[in-house]
Order: sequence, then C-alpha cells, then structure tokens
Amino acid sequence: MTNSLKLNDYKKIVGNDVVNEIREKAKKFSKKHILCINSTYQGGGVAELLNTLVILFNNVGIDVGWRILHGTPYFFNVTKKFHNALQGDKINLSEKKKKIYYETNRRFSTFTHINHDLVIIHDPQPLPLIDFYKKTQPWVWRCHIDLSAANPELWNYLEKFIKKYDHFVVSKEDYEKNISIPQTVIHPAIDPLSAKNRPLPAKLINKYLKKYGINKNIPIISQISRFDKWKDPLGVIKTFEIARKKTNCQLVLLGSLATDDPEGIAIFKDIEESVENCKYKKDIKLILVNDDILVNCLQRASSVVMQKSLKEGFALTVSEALYKETPVIASNIGGIPLQIINGENGFLHDPDDYEGFAGSIALLLGDKKLRTKLGRHGKEYIKKNFLITRLMLDWLDLFEEYL
Amino acid sequence: MTNSLKLNDYKKIVGNDVVNEIREKAKKFSKKHILCINSTYQGGGVAELLNTLVILFNNVGIDVGWRILHGTPYFFNVTKKFHNALQGDKINLSEKKKKIYYETNRRFSTFTHINHDLVIIHDPQPLPLIDFYKKTQPWVWRCHIDLSAANPELWNYLEKFIKKYDHFVVSKEDYEKNISIPQTVIHPAIDPLSAKNRPLPAKLINKYLKKYGINKNIPIISQISRFDKWKDPLGVIKTFEIARKKTNCQLVLLGSLATDDPEGIAIFKDIEESVENCKYKKDIKLILVNDDILVNCLQRASSVVMQKSLKEGFALTVSEALYKETPVIASNIGGIPLQIINGENGFLHDPDDYEGFAGSIALLLGDKKLRTKLGRHGKEYIKKNFLITRLMLDWLDLFEEYL
Repeated sequence: MTNSLKLNDYKKIVGNDVVNEIREKAKKFSKKHILCINSTYQGGGVAELLNTLVILFNNVGIDVGWRILHGTPYFFNVTKKFHNALQGDKINLSEKKKKIYYETNRRFSTFTHINHDLVIIHDPQPLPLIDFYKKTQPWVWRCHIDLSAANPELWNYLEKFIKKYDHFVVSKEDYEKNISIPQTVIHPAIDPLSAKNRPLPAKLINKYLKKYGINKNIPIISQISRFDKWKDPLGVIKTFEIARKKTNCQLVLLGSLATDDPEGIAIFKDIEESVENCKYKKDIKLILVNDDILVNCLQRASSVVMQKSLKEGFALTVSEALYKETPVIASNIGGIPLQIINGENGFLHDPDDYEGFAGSIALLLGDKKLRTKLGRHGKEYIKKNFLITRLMLDWLDLFEEYL
Repeated sequence: MTNSLKLNDYKKIVGNDVVNEIREKAKKFSKKHILCINSTYQGGGVAELLNTLVILFNNVGIDVGWRILHGTPYFFNVTKKFHNALQGDKINLSEKKKKIYYETNRRFSTFTHINHDLVIIHDPQPLPLIDFYKKTQPWVWRCHIDLSAANPELWNYLEKFIKKYDHFVVSKEDYEKNISIPQTVIHPAIDPLSAKNRPLPAKLINKYLKKYGINKNIPIISQISRFDKWKDPLGVIKTFEIARKKTNCQLVLLGSLATDDPEGIAIFKDIEESVENCKYKKDIKLILVNDDILVNCLQRASSVVMQKSLKEGFALTVSEALYKETPVIASNIGGIPLQIINGENGFLHDPDDYEGFAGSIALLLGDKKLRTKLGRHGKEYIKKNFLITRLMLDWLDLFEEYL
C-alpha cells in the first residue's frame, strides 16, 4: 500500500518540470468537484488506474470523488457479456439482459446524489446512469475497451445512452466511433510508485519466489493476467511447450479473478486441465493469487514477460514489465503495439503465430545482452509515454474544455 | 432484483398505519443528507439490509447516500481477523495490521468528500474514517457484531475511534459496552419484498430444486449461511448424521463467499472433506452459489431450517426462514433467541448439543401438524418484530435526536 501518496514523490522519477506543469494546470480547478464512477475497486486495470489518479488529483487540490456502482452477480454476468460483445463476440441481447442492466443503474442512482461540476463514467457498466439525473453538469464517458469490432446490435443499444454525454474518451485512435459527440484519445498509464511497480530489494524478490516454489536459477517466462479467454492462457501453455523443447525454462501463469468476472472460475479449470496435459507440466506454475507485490517480483525476476492476448483494451501489464526493464513478447493487437516497438523493447507476433512467439522466447533466453538492451529501451519508452503523470496532464487538458 | 422499490408496496404486508407513520416521521428530515458507509455491497446481512433501507429512505424523501469503503485483500484479511477477535478470538494485534487498517481508511478518505448532515458508519472496517475529517456533523457507529466477549486488546484499540463518535448502535442489549458515548439497541430486520423473501410460485420452487438436483419428495433440512467457521458447517453435518439415523431426510448446505472473506475458500474445502467422510454423503448437497432466489426457494421447500452457529451478530437467516413459515432449529446464541421462542416457532439448543439438535429434527419431521403450527407462529412473530418497516422507525427515532 502506498500511504499518503503525494504528487511531489514523482519528481524523482519524471522530474520537477512535469510535476510543476501539473500543479500549474490544476490550479484553475482547485475548487471543482468531479465525480468518477466505475464498477470495481479491485481487479483489472481501470480500478488500479483510478486508485492512483483520483488520489493524486485530490493531492493537487481538485476534489475528485470516486464511487463504485453496486452490482449483483446477475448484473456482472450481463456486463461481462456486454464487454465480450464490445470486443467482437456475438450476444443474445435479450430484454431480460437490458432490464437487469438498466434497472441496476436506476437502483444505484436512487442513493447516489450527484451535484458535482463534472461526471466521468468509466466503461459500460454505469453508462445508463445518465438517464436518471437532471443533467446540470458535463458528463464524460471514458471507455477502456477495444471498440474497433464492437457488436453492432449492442453498440446501437448503448449509443442511445452515449449520445446523452458531452464527451467520449477512448484508449486508441482506431477505437473511435462514428458518433455525434466529441471524442478524444487518452492512452492509459501506470503508477511507477504503486505496490505493483515500485522498486523492490532483491532479497524480497527472492523471498517471494521461494514462497511460491519458483526456482530462481531457471529462466522464468511469465504471463500475468486476469484468467480470461481474451488473455489466451491456453495459447501461452502451447507456446511454452514449443519453446521448452528448444531451451530450458519454466512458465509462471499468475492471475486473479476480479469480483465482477463470473467466467473466471470456469476458465481457471480449463487452464488446470491444460497444464495437466502438458508434456512439461512440472515446469509450469499456476498461481491464483491477488498480490501486487508478487506481480512486481515476478515481472522483475522474469527473463521474458508474455502477453499473448487475443483482445486488449490497452494491456498495461506490458508497460509494467517494460518499466522494470524486462523485455515483453506480445500479440500485435489492441494497445500493445503502442507500447512495444518490435525489436526495440520486445517482440510482436500475431496471436496465432505460436512458432513466432516460441522463437522469440528462445532468442531472448539465449542472448543476455539483447535482453539487457531491450529492457533498457523498454524502461525509457514507458517513462516517456505511459506514466501516470502524463495521464494527469491529458485529463487536465480535457477538464479545460468543460470547467 | 426489486425495481423501483416503493414504501407503499409494503402497505399490503404491514398495513397503512405503519407506512403512514414512517411517512409522517420522515417529513421532518426531507431535506437532510445522510451518508452510510460500509465495506461491501453484496454478501452478508449488512449489505442486504442497507440495500433496502437506503432505497426506502430515499423513497420517502430523505437523501440517504451509500458508499463502499475500497479495501484491498490485505485490508480484508486484517478486518476479518478483527471481526473474529470482536467475537472472542485471540488476535496478534501487530503494528502492521493497525497500519493497513488505518491507512486504508486514510486513502479512502482522500477521495470521499463528506458534507452531509449525518454520517452512519457500519461495522469496524470504516470505523477509523472519523480521524480524517473535520467533524461538522454527528457521526453514528452502527456495529452489527456480537461484542459481548470482545477481545479486550482490540477493543481498547478501537475504542479510541469509537469515542470520537456521537452515538453507538448495537443489535442486542448485551452487546452494549462500558463506554462514554450514548448507546442504542436496534434489532436488524428483513425485507419481505426482496428477491430472498418475496412470495414465489410453487412451479419456480420446483424448477430450482430440480436444477440443483434436490429431490422434493425427501424431507429437506437446510442451513443457508456464508461458509464460515462461526456458522459451524461441520457441526451441521455431524448433527445431520445423527438425525439421518433416526429418520429419512436430506441435508442441503447452501452458502456463498463474500468478497471480503479471505477465509471462505479454506473452510469450504474442510466442508467438502467432511461430507466425503460422512456415512450419508449421498444425502448431502453442498451448493456454493450466490443466488437469492435459490435461497428463497430452499427456505420455502425445507421442512426444517437450521442455524447451528457458534456466534452471530444477529442471524437474519432465522427471520427469513420463519417468515416463510418454516420452523427453525438453531443455537441459543447471539440474536437468535430474540427471534426464536423455544417450542413456539422453532427450537433452541446449546451449540454443542448435537443430540438435542438431532432430536428436534426428528420430532419435527415426524409431526407435520407441529411443523405447520410452528411455521404459522413464526411468520406472525417476524411480521410483528423483524420487518424493515420497524427498522425504519427505529432509525427515524435516532435521526430525531440529531437532525
């Protein structure tokens, strides 16, 4: 836990100028009251990002509040299907699903009194909230999902709500939609001082590896991601099997289940079975733990981090690993190519190119110099482009338009 | 889901007078802004209770807001230990635990801006919040836990925060503590119109029983409770084994894991093992599902509901079953004897009196007339004493003192 987080703590990382620029821009909004609403406070990148962003904005004098939509398991079951459909899946968009979705928002609105200067709604779960208020301030919808292949029927349904907003923020240029309200691209970012990313002593890293039975003397390949079909954990195991034939290494799959993800448990069982059937099952560690320090340790201890996803809103895990000077081999999809410059700080492959992935793993494991070079470039690139301070500046620019 | 819950819907259950009395008393607070804070919006009686209470207060014109403390798994690990120690367990009250507890509250306070007329804090998780505000309104601490054997070292630590409050609300007379601030006893209550308690058609009940493989032609004994050592699920299995020798019946254990309960998974494994070792394992169904309709069906379909807990803040599951005219056999602890009048609407036993529990099960299974009589009395008793409308009146009386 980062206690009493202060923007000044970031000076040693990004320099005085950036911090001063944020303070200067924030002055203008010093009495403003802004409300962020999303649907979970732990599990997933959005919660993590808000956790830092909201506190830092308060630290520079903007009263940013943060509330969590109270959903039921029925509700999250529906919104998970919405999430999948926005990423391109089919959906049976029944009246029952729409009702659960809409009425959960109505219920939440009854005890959520909004008198703020600006409202920022994150992702589809609380999107319909706007229907239940007399709008006396600008509302922004910030969507973290890859919308480039969104299911048209669902999009059509959601568009009715989106059109009532004043502004629409997406994570990448090609997620923009043909819609009548202004759109802005804001790349997400990582917090270099969070428990997941801050520097750790080697002793602690070794302690954690030992605790989880990971032999530090065998090169570690890891994928750290929520257990979710879109992260293709079965494909990672298949890739590892090919790579393991070429060179000695071990695979660690670390993930947690978000409280809003009813599919997680079923997928976890598939993974267990796939490990059981793998020729190198003794070299695979499957860890279901929600522990940021362990993530941090593993990203630092790994020779290579993988992100073999099929779809990603952005995949901040890539920035996390790169920032720790660990090269990343990942799918050429979603926000990943914004973070990985192929051959410079990692390698990009098509998601179904198992041989390509395995080849890059073998190449990196056999060449320590190359790993070091890519790792160094990775850290520089993320520091320049994907830290929370840059994200604050982007939001401040948007506030400027409305406050 | 109850859509657009309205107080008027309760007229058909509690009558016009009660509803009119609530409306009359609420008028006085019609422009007041009250904030409730607890630590979870699903799982456990407190979340359930707030879910109805908050919406009904808004329905009668009081602006009651409801926020959830954002905790991490580390935090909930600590507060679960606090919960256990408040119920009498030992605790290693380390500086690390105190720090996680305190700093999580500090963090939450940074983005939770309070300018309300009254603040109501539920249970120990958000208790220290009061340290981080300039207090400009009354604060009430509402504790739902049995405090009669609270660990003195922990109580001593928490008392420093409690003393800053204006008022302290407990669930039962003997939970009151020797402390300098005013104390009030408010019994919790159930919502007769929630998905868990509202009337259901027999067809739906049969459908649910079938879905979960429960044979409706064999008498059902059930315990419906979070999987938690305090609910003594292993003791329920032992009791069932004794009763099953006397008479043909089946046991259904239905429970869910709350998102703030890290112990749940371990306990669930112990239960599975205990079922496996039971002579009548084929007659036991263990269901890990979070589904209010299923709970409702099972409480209605059971011949007897058990609540063999070792500790209970109140045990609203007892009221839920009694309200459905199902007799309850339960431990003579916590809030249970407030709900069960021995021999009138159920039976009370000491938690370690396995033979007594099993005897009462056999007695009730063998006497349909007695079951019907006890069930009818149960419904009347709960209707009179433990419905949400009575709870609203109790809170309105307390508001009267401060607003």
